[in-house]
Amino acid sequence: MFENKGRTELSQLGEFGLIDHLTKDIKLKNESSIKGVGDDAAVLDFDSKKTLISTDLLLEGIHFDLSYTPLKHLGYKAIQVNLSDIYAMNGTATQVTVSIGLSSKFPLEAVEEIYSGIQIACEKYHIDLIGGDTSASKQGLVISVTSIGYAQEKDICYRNGAKEGDLICVSGDLGAAYMGLQLLEREKLIYLENPNIQPDLEGKDYIVERQLKPEARKDIVESLGELKIKPTAMIDISDGLASDILHICKQSEKGCTLYEEKIPIDPMTYDTARTFGIDPTTCALNGGEDYELLFTVAQADYEKIKHSADISIIGHITDATSGCQLISKSGNAHSLKAQGWNAFKKS
Amino acid sequence: MFENKGRTELSQLGEFGLIDHLTKDIKLKNESSIKGVGDDAAVLDFDSKKTLISTDLLLEGIHFDLSYTPLKHLGYKAIQVNLSDIYAMNGTATQVTVSIGLSSKFPLEAVEEIYSGIQIACEKYHIDLIGGDTSASKQGLVISVTSIGYAQEKDICYRNGAKEGDLICVSGDLGAAYMGLQLLEREKLIYLENPNIQPDLEGKDYIVERQLKPEARKDIVESLGELKIKPTAMIDISDGLASDILHICKQSEKGCTLYEEKIPIDPMTYDTARTFGIDPTTCALNGGEDYELLFTVAQADYEKIKHSADISIIGHITDATSGCQLISKSGNAHSLKAQGWNAFKKS
Repeated sequence: MFENKGRTELSQLGEFGLIDHLTKDIKLKNESSIKGVGDDAAVLDFDSKKTLISTDLLLEGIHFDLSYTPLKHLGYKAIQVNLSDIYAMNGTATQVTVSIGLSSKFPLEAVEEIYSGIQIACEKYHIDLIGGDTSASKQGLVISVTSIGYAQEKDICYRNGAKEGDLICVSGDLGAAYMGLQLLEREKLIYLENPNIQPDLEGKDYIVERQLKPEARKDIVESLGELKIKPTAMIDISDGLASDILHICKQSEKGCTLYEEKIPIDPMTYDTARTFGIDPTTCALNGGEDYELLFTVAQADYEKIKHSADISIIGHITDATSGCQLISKSGNAHSLKAQGWNAFKKS
Repeated sequence: MFENKGRTELSQLGEFGLIDHLTKDIKLKNESSIKGVGDDAAVLDFDSKKTLISTDLLLEGIHFDLSYTPLKHLGYKAIQVNLSDIYAMNGTATQVTVSIGLSSKFPLEAVEEIYSGIQIACEKYHIDLIGGDTSASKQGLVISVTSIGYAQEKDICYRNGAKEGDLICVSGDLGAAYMGLQLLEREKLIYLENPNIQPDLEGKDYIVERQLKPEARKDIVESLGELKIKPTAMIDISDGLASDILHICKQSEKGCTLYEEKIPIDPMTYDTARTFGIDPTTCALNGGEDYELLFTVAQADYEKIKHSADISIIGHITDATSGCQLISKSGNAHSLKAQGWNAFKKS
């Protein structure tokens, strides 16, 4: 993978040399970033605004498979999945810290690939990389990102604010990242059986990209602001629509009704799911890794939101005793269950 | 290790069940903690004060060895090493996020041990656990902590403020954590060669505890405040005195003179080093993991600081052209070199 770029051993640089090398060109972009990399801690200034903090751990073999994940995409994705949590609070993301554990089999050039993905994400989303930690790892690649942002107190959207009658909205489309993963896993198996067969991802760019290079929905938060809509509750879809609407309902002490026909699914996701013999709605409900925003708005906001091309209204909030249900295309009611990912299940 | 406590598989709980179990009793202690665990991001309020953020990654086989590290101590240490960075900015630490990657060989009872150490540290240092991530790990145990705190802008101590003539001070004593590690490693080797020989750590509590259960020096920051001393530069000693004073000198564009006879070394550290055939001063200079505070103060503060029992004055800041040197007990000058830990060196 790195044969054309030369190979520089990390041991030649040492930890401080590596950190210097990776951070020497960083220029802070946000007014709130007072001091970034280079001291015991970063110093931030959010003035009278509230500070938002979220963190995620990405582990090789659990969250990503290096046999089909380009390192640059991995760096990009590590940032996106974390920014998504700040946007899900209706906040502005401004900083990240990135800690990386690297096995000694990684040359400097591989680390640079990861960082170039991180930098592209930071540039595009106007984020400052303000700190982190770099270590050897005796195991696989470890990436830990903490994202930081701010919001005015009155603008913050928690998960617990949904009211009966609120409309349930979702951005973009669902299930694509999951079908992208199924496709990559299938091609990996074929390749392992016969290394002469090249992966066939022809025409599947959209779903593969949704898996490898997701985009956090900063744009949705911005357009809600422009439309002067404050969601009553919001969450980002990381574990799947079913699991995440259940979080909103549980914390808001409410129920919900979702309509299968309203769930946005891209045609490529739909067709690929059919080819794989998987129900497309199941992909949307339980696939996860969509990093779309799922939120509830007051019915009074319907007129403001109905023409938003990239937002679908998929149901409404009910009282808690009605439970959480999905009305299928044939009109039957099914109880929603969180069948999201259990990272601890025995394989 | 857990035979008397029963064994509960993590797969029985699942990720959300585990998080609920570990966080259900958390009560927020700090006024600045608006919302902790349970939403997409935590919400903090530092009003007009600056926010301080630092992060560290602890990896099994690199930063700790589970064959002699009790899990409760490990949880405690993971918090301390992070708080230490906030104190080194002359700040008040208030929150942490903790992400853990756990191999499936760990039962719930082991995770509870780690968390009990985390909770004891948080209780003692008045810290709120406000978020994190929990995942399976296919590799070893992974712990990533981000510490958060605040300071008034005028109180923040960076590494770059040392002036010529400033006194160089250090809290506590140095080299003990390193000798504790040497002792634990020796006993591990003896045990591996003959499992019938019990580890002999008799009378070595102090140095073993300095390695396994360090304490961040919140008390020093508080007493500097009471003495109305603001250090001109400050850092915590994680890589060793030599490496860390060089950070201050490099960033302040100054030199320094340290006096070997002034470097505080506990008698047990001294004797153990001699037994191992190691120069005690080398332990203090290059051992690391002391988590003491190394700082510079104006000469005008000498009268205020000279009677502080737990602070030693070990040298002074010079101009950059004089370089960084150690005057040995015999009066010879040696150039200081950072021989701290290179995590990427090939073993």
